[in-house]
Parts: sequence; C-alpha cells; structure tokens
Amino acid sequence: MSADVVPLRPKGGPPSLDPMLSLTASGMNSVNAVILERMQSKIPLIPALAGHLISGGGKRLRPMLTIAGAELCGYEGSRHHKLAAAVEFIHTATLLHDDVVDGSELRRGKEAANIVFGNPATVLVGDFLFSRAFELMVEDGSLKVLKILSSASAVIAEGEVDQLVAQREIETSEERYLSIIGAKTAALFAAATRIAAVVAERSEAEERALDEYGRNLGIAFQLVDDAIDYDSEAAESGKGRGDDFREGKMTLPVILAYARGTPDERKFWEDAIAGFCTEDEDLARAVELINRHDAVSATRERARHFAQRAIDAIAGFPAGAARSAMAQAAEFAVARRY
Amino acid sequence: MSADVVPLRPKGGPPSLDPMLSLTASGMNSVNAVILERMQSKIPLIPALAGHLISGGGKRLRPMLTIAGAELCGYEGSRHHKLAAAVEFIHTATLLHDDVVDGSELRRGKEAANIVFGNPATVLVGDFLFSRAFELMVEDGSLKVLKILSSASAVIAEGEVDQLVAQREIETSEERYLSIIGAKTAALFAAATRIAAVVAERSEAEERALDEYGRNLGIAFQLVDDAIDYDSEAAESGKGRGDDFREGKMTLPVILAYARGTPDERKFWEDAIAGFCTEDEDLARAVELINRHDAVSATRERARHFAQRAIDAIAGFPAGAARSAMAQAAEFAVARRY
Repeated sequence: MSADVVPLRPKGGPPSLDPMLSLTASGMNSVNAVILERMQSKIPLIPALAGHLISGGGKRLRPMLTIAGAELCGYEGSRHHKLAAAVEFIHTATLLHDDVVDGSELRRGKEAANIVFGNPATVLVGDFLFSRAFELMVEDGSLKVLKILSSASAVIAEGEVDQLVAQREIETSEERYLSIIGAKTAALFAAATRIAAVVAERSEAEERALDEYGRNLGIAFQLVDDAIDYDSEAAESGKGRGDDFREGKMTLPVILAYARGTPDERKFWEDAIAGFCTEDEDLARAVELINRHDAVSATRERARHFAQRAIDAIAGFPAGAARSAMAQAAEFAVARRY
Repeated sequence: MSADVVPLRPKGGPPSLDPMLSLTASGMNSVNAVILERMQSKIPLIPALAGHLISGGGKRLRPMLTIAGAELCGYEGSRHHKLAAAVEFIHTATLLHDDVVDGSELRRGKEAANIVFGNPATVLVGDFLFSRAFELMVEDGSLKVLKILSSASAVIAEGEVDQLVAQREIETSEERYLSIIGAKTAALFAAATRIAAVVAERSEAEERALDEYGRNLGIAFQLVDDAIDYDSEAAESGKGRGDDFREGKMTLPVILAYARGTPDERKFWEDAIAGFCTEDEDLARAVELINRHDAVSATRERARHFAQRAIDAIAGFPAGAARSAMAQAAEFAVARRY
C-alpha cells in the first residue's frame, strides 16, 4: 500500500484525477524510467520518433491503471513497473499506427509523428515499440500476463479494423459502436488493470473485478472522448476538434443525433458521414444538431453508466486510498472537458 | 524423423528446393492448417486481406525452416506447427507493413494488399497478425521461444527503420548493408530455425548451430533477392523488376557498381539514388553498369560465402535426409533466378 497521503475530494467539488496522480506518482516515476530506457535503439530515428509522441504530454493513464491496481491489491514488489511500461508501449504503437491510418495532423496538441517523420518511419517505429513491449513481458516471465496482453493486442487490432469498416457507414448502430470501442480502447484498459491482480497473485475473482473496472472505465473514457469532439462548451481537445466528423467516424453523438433527427437532418448526416460536407460550416451545423438533440449530454450519460459499473466492480476491495482514487478517476473520466 | 523419401540431387544437376519441400511436406500441411484457422476473425476484412497475401503463393520458407530444423533434431512432437505458423504470421505482418512503407504495387506477382485494400487496413491487419503470432507462442508456453521471437521482431523493426534511413544515401557501405539485411531478413530466418532446437530440447550449442544456419541462409537469400532485382538474365521476380532502383535502396549490386565505377558512372549513381533518374532508360543504364562491373555475379559470390557458412554450421548434426535437404536449400538460395 502507498504511504502517500491522497488528497480528499472537496465535498461537492468536481471529481479530480489528483488522487490517482498522487497514488501512482512514485510508481509512475519508475515506469517512466523504464519507458525512457527501453525506447532506446542504436538507430537514432527510433528514440527520436518514439520520444516525439511519448514526451508529448500524454496522461499515461493505462500504465497508471496498472500501478493503481497493484496498490489496490496491496502489491509491494516492482514487477509491475516493466509491465506498465509494456502497456504504454502497446498504446503508443497503436497511436502511431492510428495516426497513419487516419492521416492525422495533430496529436496531443502538436504535429503528429506521421507529419514530422512520415508514414513509413511511423509505421515501423510502432512495430518496434510493439515488439519491445513483448520483450518486456517476456523478461517478466509471466505467461498469464503474456496471454492477457497478446490477446488484448489482437482484439485492439480487430477493433481498429472494425472501426475502419464502419467509417462513413451511417447505419452503424449503438451496439456496434460499443463493440468497436470495447475492442479498440477498453480491451487495453481492462488488460492494464487486470495484470496488476496477476502480479499480486490475487484470486481469479479479483482479476475479473479489476478487468471489469478497466473495461468499463475504458468505455466511459472513449465515450467522453467522442463527446468532446462535438462539445461546443469543452476546451480544445489535443486531438483537433471535429476530426471524427471530417473522417466520417460513426461515434455515439452522431448515432444519437441521426436516430433522433428529422428526415431533413438525417439527409444532412447521410451526406456528411459519406464525406460530402466537411467544411467548417458543416461542422457547425453538426454541432448545432447534436446540441439540439442533447446528443453530447446523452453520450456523457451513457459514460456515467459505465463509470458507475467500474466503481461497483471494485467495491469488494477494502476501502482506502487506492479504491477511492480509482473511483474518483472513473467519475473524472465522465466529467472531464478535455 | 520423417519417413518420407527425399529425392537425391542428380549428380552435377542444379541445386533444388525439392528435397526441402519433400522433407517438410507433411509438417507444412499441419502448419498451413494452423495458418488458415488462426488468420480468421469475426471481422471479415481481416481474413480477406490476410488471405490475399497468405494465399498469394509465397514459398513459406521461414516456417519450413522450423519444420526442417525439427527434423534435423529428430523431434517427433507437434508443438512446432503452431510456432512455425507464428513465424509466418510475423513475416506476413512485416510484408504488409513493408508494402505500405514502400508504396509497393506488386507483391508475389499480383497487386499488393495496400493497393487492393488501402494502406489503413493493411497496417491494421499487419498488427492483427503480429498479435496473433504472439498468441500462438503464448499458447505453446515456452518463454525461451517467446524471448527468441520477440527479440527477433524488435531487431527486424530496427533493420527496417535503418533501411529507411539509408534509402537514397549513396554513401551506404557494404558493412552497413550487411547489418541492415542481417536485421530485417536474417534475424527471422535465424529465429525460425533456432526455435526448432528449443522445442526439441537440444543443447545450447545445437541451438546456436541452427541459429547460425538460419542467419547465414537469410543473408544469402536477401543478397540473391537484391541481385535478382538487377539481373538481366533472371526471370521476372514477383516483386517487380527495378523496384529497389526506383526506391533508391542501397543494395549490394549498387554499392559494388558505385565503388567500382568511373567518376562519370558515380555521378549517375548519385543522381539515380537521390531519385533524379527513375525512368526505364535509367534502369537500363543501371543494369548495364552493374553488368559491366560484374556486380550481380559478385553479389551472388558473396551469397555463396554465406550459404557455405550455413551448410558448415549444421555439419555437426548427423548426416541424413534433413541435413542434406537443408544444405541443398542453401545452395539453391544462391543459384535461384526468381
């Protein structure tokens, strides 16, 4: 257990990530050291490109979940540092490949790696980081952890392909959307949290509880990400406002606005998602329609449901700094505006 | 040991891959069944894209090396079938990513996957196959095999990045070229052969011998591949004649022709590799200069050196069908014209 003092949430104040950050601060220092050390290579372009993204101000939420989960399980060893770094490498590899796939121009508020270094190097450095993640897991030596993370990696790739197939497909249902984000985002959240229980040698039931926490948190997190892309009140998200709209991605705000729309509005959505309306004025109309049908707040409401499930999934663990930080992180995931 | 009869090489006839094909025929049937079963996914685009390449007539040389190595070690189990399939999945993933990186139009004589299915899906299905490879290894459960193949995968990615950096760089030395092909090609050949000794629970020395066989064979194989791209006498290679030239890749035929060239010829190479001479007539001139300086036959001579080292690396194993098939495969790698 951490001896750190976890700041309490001021009564009635907005949920904050601070308790999570305090809880995991010392562990994340060790994780960051592993990340920096193991992204090195005798080919200088590799750390240059990887570092562009890795030092680019990401929240490192996934490795943080491994550290927090280990705290929750009362784990006192250090095996999870390497494994948390492996999780972040897998995540970084998928981001690099995503940016190539989407032709992204911005990532975390600065030029995406594919713009600075080109698609070829970005694809290959993603492959390197992915391989390095497996090397770290092999060094740890747990076949159970390897199984969890290799299977999550395959599911992530399936989710990404499925998202690609659903792109520009106006008839995408909420069900299918949930299946896509469950694969492309929540599978790694679930695996990151689950492996903490494996390292701490806790029961199968506790493993499953941490898996559920991570999975539901991941869904909530992605729902809010997708809401923010259309949220006129939200601060600029690092990923570039309206990206999903221009790429014709069927996210929940669009699915709901389309479902709730008039025939005229539906015609607009059909054209927009097909790629015929991608100007700024089209984005403005999209945001207006989404507001008219409360699709952003409905998406946040859906997120709240999954966040609550995440919180309840870990209710069986002893109360304490770890559990309350993880619960508040789930509330924060719903409330955040960036 | 295989009970199959391995055809003898007719005295003085050209070396053939047939003994290798006979030796591994039954094992490769099992490997192919694993490949077909494990490239499936509930997302139909994944087997469609993977199958486009996998059913596209590749030689499946790498998994064949695992099967042949197991024969050489007298292994009688079936664990190596899954592992050989994992090796082929890693190879397929790198080919898919290579084709995106190079913007290839042809692969194995037909339209490359990136042309048929687009770059995004090709990148993501590569990721899927790579993850699936690790799932197969985890199912097998040998941490030693996982270590060998995860480390080979990282080395391959490093080699690919290094090749990208050396592209259009006329001052690339033979040493650096050998380091690149040692990483991007020979590392997987070495790993594929080495894991056969691991599965057969042979000594560290025998593991190393198989590693050396694979590594030297891989270098010979890539040298000849690179020679064929400029070989006016060779049959059309499936990869599209002159691709390396147009992409400004510094392969050994160019390195030698440049080193042996007159100042005028060097000027041509500098412009060509920089990307200023990529017409058919420029390729014709390149082939003519390479012939003038015997750079194709010198490249094949270099390949012969590595093939011989491969043959000598397994000299300590008992004589028999497996050893002679593997030796002849190395001779074949040098003599082949496609």
